[in-house]
Amino acid sequence: MSKFSDRYDPGPQIAQCGAINLGTTDLEKSLFFFRDTLGMEEVERRGNEVYLRCYQELGHHSLVLTQQDEAMVNSYSFRVKRPQDVELFHEELKRQEIEVLELAAGSVAGRGTAIRFLLPGGDHPFELYHDIDKPMAPEALRSRLLSNSSKRRGLATRRIDHFNIQTSPETINQAEQWVRDTLGFKRREFAHIPEHPDTILASWMSVTPQVHDLAIVANPEGKKAQCHHVAFNMQDFSDVLSAADTLKDLDVTFDVGPGKHGIGQAMYLYVFDPGSGHRVELYAGGYLIFDPDWEAIEWKRETFPDGLTYYGDTIDPFPPSISAVTTNSAGLILK
Amino acid sequence: MSKFSDRYDPGPQIAQCGAINLGTTDLEKSLFFFRDTLGMEEVERRGNEVYLRCYQELGHHSLVLTQQDEAMVNSYSFRVKRPQDVELFHEELKRQEIEVLELAAGSVAGRGTAIRFLLPGGDHPFELYHDIDKPMAPEALRSRLLSNSSKRRGLATRRIDHFNIQTSPETINQAEQWVRDTLGFKRREFAHIPEHPDTILASWMSVTPQVHDLAIVANPEGKKAQCHHVAFNMQDFSDVLSAADTLKDLDVTFDVGPGKHGIGQAMYLYVFDPGSGHRVELYAGGYLIFDPDWEAIEWKRETFPDGLTYYGDTIDPFPPSISAVTTNSAGLILK
Amino acid sequence: MSKFSDRYDPGPQIAQCGAINLGTTDLEKSLFFFRDTLGMEEVERRGNEVYLRCYQELGHHSLVLTQQDEAMVNSYSFRVKRPQDVELFHEELKRQEIEVLELAAGSVAGRGTAIRFLLPGGDHPFELYHDIDKPMAPEALRSRLLSNSSKRRGLATRRIDHFNIQTSPETINQAEQWVRDTLGFKRREFAHIPEHPDTILASWMSVTPQVHDLAIVANPEGKKAQCHHVAFNMQDFSDVLSAADTLKDLDVTFDVGPGKHGIGQAMYLYVFDPGSGHRVELYAGGYLIFDPDWEAIEWKRETFPDGLTYYGDTIDPFPPSISAVTTNSAGLILK
Amino acid sequence: MSKFSDRYDPGPQIAQCGAINLGTTDLEKSLFFFRDTLGMEEVERRGNEVYLRCYQELGHHSLVLTQQDEAMVNSYSFRVKRPQDVELFHEELKRQEIEVLELAAGSVAGRGTAIRFLLPGGDHPFELYHDIDKPMAPEALRSRLLSNSSKRRGLATRRIDHFNIQTSPETINQAEQWVRDTLGFKRREFAHIPEHPDTILASWMSVTPQVHDLAIVANPEGKKAQCHHVAFNMQDFSDVLSAADTLKDLDVTFDVGPGKHGIGQAMYLYVFDPGSGHRVELYAGGYLIFDPDWEAIEWKRETFPDGLTYYGDTIDPFPPSISAVTTNSAGLILK
Repeated sequence: MSKFSDRYDPGPQIAQCGAINLGTTDLEKSLFFFRDTLGMEEVERRGNEVYLRCYQELGHHSLVLTQQDEAMVNSYSFRVKRPQDVELFHEELKRQEIEVLELAAGSVAGRGTAIRFLLPGGDHPFELYHDIDKPMAPEALRSRLLSNSSKRRGLATRRIDHFNIQTSPETINQAEQWVRDTLGFKRREFAHIPEHPDTILASWMSVTPQVHDLAIVANPEGKKAQCHHVAFNMQDFSDVLSAADTLKDLDVTFDVGPGKHGIGQAMYLYVFDPGSGHRVELYAGGYLIFDPDWEAIEWKRETFPDGLTYYGDTIDPFPPSISAVTTNSAGLILK
Repeated sequence: MSKFSDRYDPGPQIAQCGAINLGTTDLEKSLFFFRDTLGMEEVERRGNEVYLRCYQELGHHSLVLTQQDEAMVNSYSFRVKRPQDVELFHEELKRQEIEVLELAAGSVAGRGTAIRFLLPGGDHPFELYHDIDKPMAPEALRSRLLSNSSKRRGLATRRIDHFNIQTSPETINQAEQWVRDTLGFKRREFAHIPEHPDTILASWMSVTPQVHDLAIVANPEGKKAQCHHVAFNMQDFSDVLSAADTLKDLDVTFDVGPGKHGIGQAMYLYVFDPGSGHRVELYAGGYLIFDPDWEAIEWKRETFPDGLTYYGDTIDPFPPSISAVTTNSAGLILK
Repeated sequence: MSKFSDRYDPGPQIAQCGAINLGTTDLEKSLFFFRDTLGMEEVERRGNEVYLRCYQELGHHSLVLTQQDEAMVNSYSFRVKRPQDVELFHEELKRQEIEVLELAAGSVAGRGTAIRFLLPGGDHPFELYHDIDKPMAPEALRSRLLSNSSKRRGLATRRIDHFNIQTSPETINQAEQWVRDTLGFKRREFAHIPEHPDTILASWMSVTPQVHDLAIVANPEGKKAQCHHVAFNMQDFSDVLSAADTLKDLDVTFDVGPGKHGIGQAMYLYVFDPGSGHRVELYAGGYLIFDPDWEAIEWKRETFPDGLTYYGDTIDPFPPSISAVTTNSAGLILK
Repeated sequence: MSKFSDRYDPGPQIAQCGAINLGTTDLEKSLFFFRDTLGMEEVERRGNEVYLRCYQELGHHSLVLTQQDEAMVNSYSFRVKRPQDVELFHEELKRQEIEVLELAAGSVAGRGTAIRFLLPGGDHPFELYHDIDKPMAPEALRSRLLSNSSKRRGLATRRIDHFNIQTSPETINQAEQWVRDTLGFKRREFAHIPEHPDTILASWMSVTPQVHDLAIVANPEGKKAQCHHVAFNMQDFSDVLSAADTLKDLDVTFDVGPGKHGIGQAMYLYVFDPGSGHRVELYAGGYLIFDPDWEAIEWKRETFPDGLTYYGDTIDPFPPSISAVTTNSAGLILK
């Protein structure tokens, strides 16, 4: 007889923030940053694409760098929990009359069949997949720690952490609601625009106990399909400080940080990939949510500054400053 | 129409490691340790029981200290995901002909209805509950950080992390299998007894992305119902070092540590509560598992030493040393 | 025959930054800050004065809190290397026709004979002493570490680190030169006022391998006898972060930080003592200078911002901001 | 008229622990360790010698790796405070009828005239020098921080810290006394051999505020001229932990650590240079001594274990274990 724990069908679910495909106009500089400085492993190179992963990631890649003319985000990929979930989500998207592109296994290196669509209300190109190769690293890079795909090295980002995307104030409520209702994300912390108390300013959402696997923020210029940043996770606050030290000396441009967010309680450092100009967050710590009945925390006008910066280099709490420099995301036409 | 993400029934699930009830022969010394030194909040006192929680826990308690004649573990409590899950697990336990005690709401302070039973193959007293009060801390203790129930203070343990329990080599396979099949835990890392390759030496299991919410280890003296330790989580490796510094100077007895486990990749420090003698682990870092198809990592005779101690104060890898000093757990008779 | 190393006479020398006497209008709040929060030991209370020291200081005190009507700095005390150095410095001051007050042994608790004078060019009340009691802490506070006077506790400031004082741009060159020529401090790092390239903007000086035991900075409002801050030393960068976390939650007012100075390479956090309003720096790390032929490092207009803030919460590099909020120092009249 | 502070003659003094010359049988492996892993700069290569320095050292080198048949220590070099001190020490050594070798400027790359002699009572080859070049690093390596000779990189050892040498119990008192009387080192902490209470077991001595620039320990096998280790300094405790992580994964052999010494209060990790087998300590933290009348701390039989290991991986407190694996030092014949 089947195990009790297998007797139910939880339905299709998102498992994790899987990978981002960053278009870069200077692949070599981007590789210097992500591979040689942050310490990611170059797993595969195919045409104008380089696939990388962090030292604690067993899957084929969490970052794809694509040499192209414009520094856009080509895709935000989420992994689903079960093989059949790709198809189950596909059916639901069709039911909602959302245009979906099927991506054959291997169209992205190391990855199985996937679907691609634009986030309703955001137009960000999302992809859902399940199957992913788990290649061994070359022997010289392998770790004694069996849970690491390679040795800790460089500034030691250990895994992709989350995406932070922006859309217009007019559509943000729709986008945020859709992510929760259809993809099953839970709202963990949020703020409304003080002058528009019915409109989301920012929402931190997750499918895991992390405070966010995905944040959606209102773009003050009203632009959709914007990427604010992709975050990579480090072990300790001290790792973020060491990274700040090194990156400063390598003349990598800082956006803001280091500092500690009140929201999520993690240490942050935002810098720009010198190859592509995309904003990257180095991120450590943070609290985990195991409460099944978590009530989303609301940050109001007077507490929001604490939420963005509990201590350290200060993030301006209200637009336009929060939105400074974003990257466009590429829609369905690109691929 | 209902949200897509709500359209399925995932069945009853364990949400988290909720609380431990430690019997102590010297309540005041235990309070000096957990409350005054580690920095936990005393939430409520009722008869011979004191209820405490860490600064990042919103629920009523994660630790109950009970003044009693013998330093036993009175219960290991797990929180379930939905209110109805208590009853659904109850039905399954009855179906499996496991004796179950119903605990009325309020029989444990701040907690709703619960069920209590002995772990098959282990005889450890497990309790499952859902409802738990979320009291505000007294105003002077409240944090500006809305996700904290109180200010970070003392050595700053921020939440309960996991239980490590022991049972006899004869029954460990049964206990470990039952936890996985009925409670839905996933095996994340494990080792077999080198001389008995079919018998679990240790298994680290979780219902969350943590490497373990519960570990089961073979007791070398063949005893069932043993508690090896309860772990409390700290933010950074440096917090464990600061704790070691302070605890040493307070003449708290060290078992082993600080050091870094290969298994789970977390920093550890094992000390004994000076009031009760229970072993407590101060624990920080560690990797998270988001892979839905995670394959449990096996540690073999030659790699197991690395697994227990990657660096730092060395844990003896094989019995009898791993089991030194355990605490009995109280069965159904006690309550 | 005498030891070779004793055969020479190095003359009178300053050994270290010894103590600061802070006038506070709210002694209890200042004690809450320095004793109960930072973790300093209250060694003695005499009249309206409380004497405190850090856990790594064996001498009687490094901080005197004096309850008084105005929050002034009553004295900056330096310890000299040999008993006879107090008298030798006294003779030199007389030779320079500087007014000197003799302070009898015991006029400051735990301290021997001292001299007091106003810094030429600065008017800050300086005191020089040699003899100081080294009382044992009460038994409950004593550390197993024989080099600690008490257990590490609270936010764990371990010793006084340095003074940062201000005087007017008109007199700063004189003051800085006098400190070097007469007291034997060495200039380690410095900057000139960009618009007045012959005038010191700031000079970091030391008699020890620290980058500074004393800094003198030009006061943009032209005021003499100003105190910018007194700094207390912590072990690690992580200790400053933990302190930031706790102090924020205690509503202690932050000036600036945490961040890392390029000058000195230490982590900083400037906060205000809630009792007196004096600025206090929590300080960790930094490099040591062992080169006997160290050439003072000059920070120019374009590099000075890096010097003040290498990373973290940004200190405004040029007046008036650097001088915001200073405390007057009390001259000879007070005592 | 001359400055007051210059009016006295302090006599010849040792300024700092300058450099060590390690003979290695596998230069490439040693370079992999010191340069590629610890992050030292290769400043110059001359014949079979490679000169390296750490990122916070402005002088030409603090480590010389010499390819040779035997892994010996070729010299322990100390820098003196003034140019004339080399000659003044030379005269004193002649007065004491100690054989001295004069080393011409340039005989060691980047260094001026030096003298070489064997430590009385120890036979370790000591060298004293003053003049040392301060070459700029290649532009790509230079740091924005003007006090760094190059960018922080690799595991980030920032400067040489101290030497730990051994001699026989029969001669250790003589050697220790000579270092204090003639070279002017101060005894900071010490222990006697429990069974021979008149014989030094270990003495930690310094000319700087560090607890030790030089330690002398009794060799349990009665051997003279032994090197226990050379230590390199790191910024924070967390840097030692990161180093432990990386070095373990590179299969560098650990001796003992990480842990925290009670003596000196620093974090330690002892590993063996894979090229030469010399023991190297990675060292962070520690307290500084500014008290001019510091009384040396004595560690007795019952407190000495705390002194060696306050927490962490345990150093065996009494011979023979403390002495395990030492390296011979080369006497006057070699060079």
